[in-house]
Amino acid sequence: MSGENRPPVTVIGLGAMGTALAGAFLDRGHPTTVWNRTGGKAAPLAARGATVAATAAGALAASPLTVVCVLDDRAVHEALDPVAGALAGRTLVNLTNSTPEQARATARWARERGAGYLDGGIMAVPPMIGRPESLILYSGPAATFDAHLATLSVLGSPMYLGEDDGRAALYDIALLGAMYGMFGGYLNAVALTRAAGVPATELTPLIVSWLQAMLTGLPRMAKGVDAGDHAAAASNVRMQALGYVNLLDTARDQGVRTELMAPMGELLDRAVAAGRGEGDLSGLVDLLRAPEGTR
Amino acid sequence: MSGENRPPVTVIGLGAMGTALAGAFLDRGHPTTVWNRTGGKAAPLAARGATVAATAAGALAASPLTVVCVLDDRAVHEALDPVAGALAGRTLVNLTNSTPEQARATARWARERGAGYLDGGIMAVPPMIGRPESLILYSGPAATFDAHLATLSVLGSPMYLGEDDGRAALYDIALLGAMYGMFGGYLNAVALTRAAGVPATELTPLIVSWLQAMLTGLPRMAKGVDAGDHAAAASNVRMQALGYVNLLDTARDQGVRTELMAPMGELLDRAVAAGRGEGDLSGLVDLLRAPEGTR
Repeated sequence: MSGENRPPVTVIGLGAMGTALAGAFLDRGHPTTVWNRTGGKAAPLAARGATVAATAAGALAASPLTVVCVLDDRAVHEALDPVAGALAGRTLVNLTNSTPEQARATARWARERGAGYLDGGIMAVPPMIGRPESLILYSGPAATFDAHLATLSVLGSPMYLGEDDGRAALYDIALLGAMYGMFGGYLNAVALTRAAGVPATELTPLIVSWLQAMLTGLPRMAKGVDAGDHAAAASNVRMQALGYVNLLDTARDQGVRTELMAPMGELLDRAVAAGRGEGDLSGLVDLLRAPEGTR
Repeated sequence: MSGENRPPVTVIGLGAMGTALAGAFLDRGHPTTVWNRTGGKAAPLAARGATVAATAAGALAASPLTVVCVLDDRAVHEALDPVAGALAGRTLVNLTNSTPEQARATARWARERGAGYLDGGIMAVPPMIGRPESLILYSGPAATFDAHLATLSVLGSPMYLGEDDGRAALYDIALLGAMYGMFGGYLNAVALTRAAGVPATELTPLIVSWLQAMLTGLPRMAKGVDAGDHAAAASNVRMQALGYVNLLDTARDQGVRTELMAPMGELLDRAVAAGRGEGDLSGLVDLLRAPEGTR
């Protein structure tokens, strides 16, 4: 694709994700400069036409827009603090996985140094980058987002979540938490059946279909949460707490550790004890709020 | 639909699920007898044409095939032990949620009394019953399954898992465990964002899309488990353990309890400590096996 009029972009951080981001910019014809703290990661991108900056300062200077995607918030500051003087007049888009508090602090830090700042969360794995199914969440000043929307759209489907710099990180963390719940449940299921000699590849198509069906129930639960209406749809919490005992007993019978499963059983029991036994599973969300003074 | 030549069926247990099962048989023209331990549940089915048995013994006597779907294994035996003499020459299909050990014990118990027996697990919620997307798992003698396949197909899509009486229960429990993992992750995600004022109905469509995307990664993990090949696809366990700290920190910042999330973080840390940090998440399944002697 032609690179005419495509604004230059810099990518800092060349792990699997940063490499995918830089590759997407190159594929769409953006003059792309890359930098990584440790060497040796840039060669494949250089072969595809990227300019490899010798220093982080040079990388920031090369483009009006720099996307940073490194391991964590500490790595962001290890890379950028020494060269913060090069930030003035530039825009930094931080796609590093961060907490909302970290995102807000980095936003302040960047703006104090004269930079524009957007925080983002990538809801995709590297092979999805550059395709519409790659959802990337952004928050920060709307004007900054609008100014770079065309460029950021190269990476996937951008979703703007508002001016609160921490909002994209919050959604990112929430979605990751949902994913780890699902993965934990999956690992449990495989551990249980494997102990009886069932191949994971035999069980998994059933799990995928079953979880797809159960996903369709989430919008109803969401309505219940928002309305504070936790009337049970079918099986109430008391019945589910009773049934959950079978999950734990089966794990013990099969020689599988209950560490990932036990807390949900305890939460169901706690809900019954709190008088929520006749209600829906959606009511458990209230029980996940920490008591005041325990933060 | 015409009931000509449709064999009579009995349904014992008229909770939401038993009522849905009996309703599906009625809709397809099966002469249907129903019984529930406590009264008052049968009236709507009677209005649809069901015969209401006065006793459990009468219910068993009314049909060659009886489907039992009650709260738990104890309720199965509370209902049937007193009338076990009526089982001889009949077939019992037990769709009550049970552990594999319970299923095997009830199978022995029924056969000792001269009954045919199949154990089953319903992978559906009541509104799905009678539709193809209602998956019902069965295990037990193939001849018994084949003899009643046409009738059982009325309830949804039957899947036969083999002669081991406990196999359907094992799959059922495994799939339920996967579901509770997903639901736990969802409740966490909603708790986190709600603490920041985000409506659950705003977050949930994103979660559904994201989890649908992440579900597509499970078959690859399954292949890794079966092959014992846990080479990391993108983000390895060490990176994920590091990122997981952000989930826990965000929960604390938002005033959300970490009880459902913490065990996965501990498992990731344990995997790193066990030398599995450079590998894929699929390798965690090995760490869920209980040490010998701790069952």
